[in-house]
Amino acid sequence: MGDTWSRQVHPDIESERYKQTFDVERLTNILDGGAQDTALRRKVESIIHSDPEFSLKDNYFLTQSECYEAAVEKKFHLQMLAQRQGWAEDSREAYYAYRTLSGSLGFSLQHIFLKALRSLGSEEQIAKWVPVCNKFQIIGTYAQTELGHGTYLQGLETEATYDAATQEFVVHSPTMTAIKWWPGDRITVGDIGPKMGLDHVDNGFLQLDHVRVPRENMLSRFAQVLPDGTYIKLGTAQSNYLSMVVTRVELLPGITAELQKACVIAIRYSIIRHQSRLRPSEPEAKILDYQTQQQKLLPQLATAYAFHFLARSLLEFLHDSHDAILDRDFSLLPELHALSAGLKAMVSDFCTYGAELCRRACGGHGYSKLSGLPSLVTKVTASCTFEGENTVLYLQMARFLVKSYQRTQVSLGPTLQRSLPQSVAYLTAPDLARCPAQRAADFFHPELYTTAWAHVAARLTKDSVHHIQTLMRSGADEHEAWNRTTVIHLQAAKAHCYYVTVKSFTEALEKLESEPAVRQVLRRLCDLYALHGILTNTGDFLHDGFLSGAQVDMARTAYLDLLLLVRKDAILLTDAFDFTDQCLNSALGCYDGNVYERLFDWAQKSPSNTQENPAYEKYIRPLLQSCRSKL
Amino acid sequence: MGDTWSRQVHPDIESERYKQTFDVERLTNILDGGAQDTALRRKVESIIHSDPEFSLKDNYFLTQSECYEAAVEKKFHLQMLAQRQGWAEDSREAYYAYRTLSGSLGFSLQHIFLKALRSLGSEEQIAKWVPVCNKFQIIGTYAQTELGHGTYLQGLETEATYDAATQEFVVHSPTMTAIKWWPGDRITVGDIGPKMGLDHVDNGFLQLDHVRVPRENMLSRFAQVLPDGTYIKLGTAQSNYLSMVVTRVELLPGITAELQKACVIAIRYSIIRHQSRLRPSEPEAKILDYQTQQQKLLPQLATAYAFHFLARSLLEFLHDSHDAILDRDFSLLPELHALSAGLKAMVSDFCTYGAELCRRACGGHGYSKLSGLPSLVTKVTASCTFEGENTVLYLQMARFLVKSYQRTQVSLGPTLQRSLPQSVAYLTAPDLARCPAQRAADFFHPELYTTAWAHVAARLTKDSVHHIQTLMRSGADEHEAWNRTTVIHLQAAKAHCYYVTVKSFTEALEKLESEPAVRQVLRRLCDLYALHGILTNTGDFLHDGFLSGAQVDMARTAYLDLLLLVRKDAILLTDAFDFTDQCLNSALGCYDGNVYERLFDWAQKSPSNTQENPAYEKYIRPLLQSCRSKL
Repeated sequence: MGDTWSRQVHPDIESERYKQTFDVERLTNILDGGAQDTALRRKVESIIHSDPEFSLKDNYFLTQSECYEAAVEKKFHLQMLAQRQGWAEDSREAYYAYRTLSGSLGFSLQHIFLKALRSLGSEEQIAKWVPVCNKFQIIGTYAQTELGHGTYLQGLETEATYDAATQEFVVHSPTMTAIKWWPGDRITVGDIGPKMGLDHVDNGFLQLDHVRVPRENMLSRFAQVLPDGTYIKLGTAQSNYLSMVVTRVELLPGITAELQKACVIAIRYSIIRHQSRLRPSEPEAKILDYQTQQQKLLPQLATAYAFHFLARSLLEFLHDSHDAILDRDFSLLPELHALSAGLKAMVSDFCTYGAELCRRACGGHGYSKLSGLPSLVTKVTASCTFEGENTVLYLQMARFLVKSYQRTQVSLGPTLQRSLPQSVAYLTAPDLARCPAQRAADFFHPELYTTAWAHVAARLTKDSVHHIQTLMRSGADEHEAWNRTTVIHLQAAKAHCYYVTVKSFTEALEKLESEPAVRQVLRRLCDLYALHGILTNTGDFLHDGFLSGAQVDMARTAYLDLLLLVRKDAILLTDAFDFTDQCLNSALGCYDGNVYERLFDWAQKSPSNTQENPAYEKYIRPLLQSCRSKL
Repeated sequence: MGDTWSRQVHPDIESERYKQTFDVERLTNILDGGAQDTALRRKVESIIHSDPEFSLKDNYFLTQSECYEAAVEKKFHLQMLAQRQGWAEDSREAYYAYRTLSGSLGFSLQHIFLKALRSLGSEEQIAKWVPVCNKFQIIGTYAQTELGHGTYLQGLETEATYDAATQEFVVHSPTMTAIKWWPGDRITVGDIGPKMGLDHVDNGFLQLDHVRVPRENMLSRFAQVLPDGTYIKLGTAQSNYLSMVVTRVELLPGITAELQKACVIAIRYSIIRHQSRLRPSEPEAKILDYQTQQQKLLPQLATAYAFHFLARSLLEFLHDSHDAILDRDFSLLPELHALSAGLKAMVSDFCTYGAELCRRACGGHGYSKLSGLPSLVTKVTASCTFEGENTVLYLQMARFLVKSYQRTQVSLGPTLQRSLPQSVAYLTAPDLARCPAQRAADFFHPELYTTAWAHVAARLTKDSVHHIQTLMRSGADEHEAWNRTTVIHLQAAKAHCYYVTVKSFTEALEKLESEPAVRQVLRRLCDLYALHGILTNTGDFLHDGFLSGAQVDMARTAYLDLLLLVRKDAILLTDAFDFTDQCLNSALGCYDGNVYERLFDWAQKSPSNTQENPAYEKYIRPLLQSCRSKL
């Protein structure tokens, strides 16, 4: 068939895999959570990939409507496959199947509906509705956002009036701005029109005209309405947010995977692409050998690893506290809520920024949909807005920081210190006024940079509280004082999120004592993540003299040295994510490195090359003729 | 028709226009270059908008192929219209027609082909080919980029072998990576496949198999080949870059316009959108009244104005030096080349960042194509890559900075100082070691912040030269030293570009002495642009103690105060750009502020609402039935 190229690995990328300084398979196992999980994931992937119905290959040539149809078709086939294979809805196998198909499946909102049911429903309601949903007897959706309201839930206009006579709620959209906007998977209402991406989700609108819903259908784990209309509150003000908290935390691995894929594609391409010469006498260099290309891609790779361990540690925290919350022990909920809000904002912000950076680092070819990068960017950028707009989420984290710090101001004693939530314990820890680093190599110490980030996060939090207090002393009320300082709060929340990420990465490293080679390569990524963050926020570290200008220069030297070290392992580190070529679906990012052959081959399939565009006959020919006839 | 809403302006936006602190029409005239230009632009706009063939309204519902067809159709109609109206190809009217149609026209590469012809062709060649092109007797393209090579021109693989026997060049693609990739408007070769945006451009590939081209067709202003094959060079090494320099400079107003439009849409929407309360007792607030929303949008508005004046001053510089260059006086070319490279990089980077920020500031509705923002973002982001990848362009600027600074090191005397190009004259100017600001209000002085930016740009340039010298003293050759310091050079080039922008804005203000009200409002935007830049790069100013931490806090206070002042005029400042609703083509950004009505109305037109998707009958019904039958 002429595609002999597809049977061999490009020598430029093969040579990168030749010298393994660590065991890639071990790293893959660690990322998966164990060798058994790796084996199970690969088994599911091979089942999915062996079925041509699940191929994503034509995705880039589909119209929006065809894209939706293809996603529904895949969901249908997956449902049948899961029944044949005996994969339960919440099994590891089902999770891996989703990962393999990159979420290009219909009815994703049915999934969120189920999450809400499990978090907010009573045990009886869960027992009644979950099986009905899983068998597709009903198709659920999650209709929260309205045309005029999103993140601010108190502003929602939809009315639910209880009618005690029939024991029903009358649900109604009283105004145009109350129309539900964005819910998907519905069958008879309307579509909200074309979007930037996510063409496989049929986001719709839903106008409610006095729809009657039986009393028992209100999800009643944390609140009930008695037959006579009496409202009984069983949780706290925050407990109804639990389903959002769960959804946000469970989003993190998927968002992180998009950045991981972008790194795989861009780094593999940067090994095959040659451009310009490092010296006039040399052949053209691999673009990954340029410092500027390393500076673009390698900190993103470090971030992709950092967020993997961050998501895992937050999932563990959620898992440990979830049962207690369902049993109405809400003591951990404020911290969990703040972490889920702030870290969702940070992870989606950074993954969007990073994926777009990877896309641009591929030059013109990154603008081609066939690279896989444009659809990845337009998909991940949606996560900055859904499940809470990021600025609002950062400010929720900031409120938690302010409250925590204010508690330390009231009284300072050992009792209090114990009672501060773990993630903000540094607010009362003894602090260094100056960083002790004396040479570049001092920056390769987790304790040094973790302390540096804690220092900055604490300083900014104190600064924001100080500004509130100053404004209030000059007559502002607490609301005005808050609103006039939000720019400063944002800064504090971001620094805190950075600290939490660095901390979780260093903690993950501590658990790898028995794996020195893997640990060393991950340690470099952790160093790189922390130093890149310091160097892109030098002002925060220089402001109070914690770092001097000379120390910033040392950190930069350390950072540039690290880039060269990570560069050597870059391909192995992208291989370790173990994404299949089918899952990446990228002409630039395949394992074998045959970039140009695949790009040229895939472009031939473009409808513009296989079908004639009517524009020539209708416009171009008459234009050429009319102009010529005038000569 | 029930759309009474379209006949009145929303009171929330009307009230913003009530108190005019300056004459919006005067500002519009200044932006246009005079009242006559405003009148001419509006005349062209009204001609275009009165013709339904030019409507952009259905654009968001088209497939890629339909989009291309529509663009060709519009180009065809425009060609006919221009002939009827007597608009010449390079007239103001033609320029305004392009602006009105937001470039959604076919054959844009024909335009670049013409530019190259005018810059690199001899007078005879221009006289021969321009009329032939303008009459569409031939359709031109610009085929530079290859599958394997882009910005690095020396690496291009396409071969042109001169055959003296027939006086022809034999043009040939010897390898797969030599295939021309991206040229558009061709008729018989291939399409490169779907892209992130720019669906109206049919970017293609072109494989050359010993194509013969007559000797006279080589563009021969700066180089000739005699009949016997002798190559004669008439320009310098850089003179063949002239057409790229011209193209880059002329791109700037169009790229800037995309940011301006994004600001108009997001700021108007932020007046209509209400969310949450500033105080519990108050109604929900306009989102533009939140400090965080102001912080997102108003610096972007300031940037959109700053780049307007920057583009104008660079166009004037190009205009003043172009004739001299055509006459082979190349003395200004190095500075022009550096400025065109660095500023193209900065403008496209910042406009892409800003347009995406505006899009996200509209929350979920910014993800809808009907907002106009997704297509605007995917269009403007392409400008970061085309006509030179931005990192490479910044480094060209950096090389100019290094060379200029090295000249000052050789000898320091008054003669030399005069001979340094104007834009880098500050490298030899006397420098302050500390910023003299003592309170927040001191930062509202153009001289203060222009000096601050010059200080940082000079320090970073010196730092980068110092690093090169250190490496060379320790044994590196000049190439290695350069490649190991590019991250630092990038930083210096960016600071210099910022300085040039601040400088051009302050110079534009100096010319507005007779317009105190307009000047005052523009002055605030200039202050905002400069201070926002300082606050997002505080590390650069704190590093050597030029600013102290306390001064950074003063600058922040000044900046937050400015946000409130600019907030008051925000709608008037967006109105002054005078984009028509048809040109914006946004459900969120129309002049009347009827956001929700228009969004709901436009969504009804989505094909998903007017046509049935086959997915229901094919997959959803069988899925529901198969599951039910198992019960």
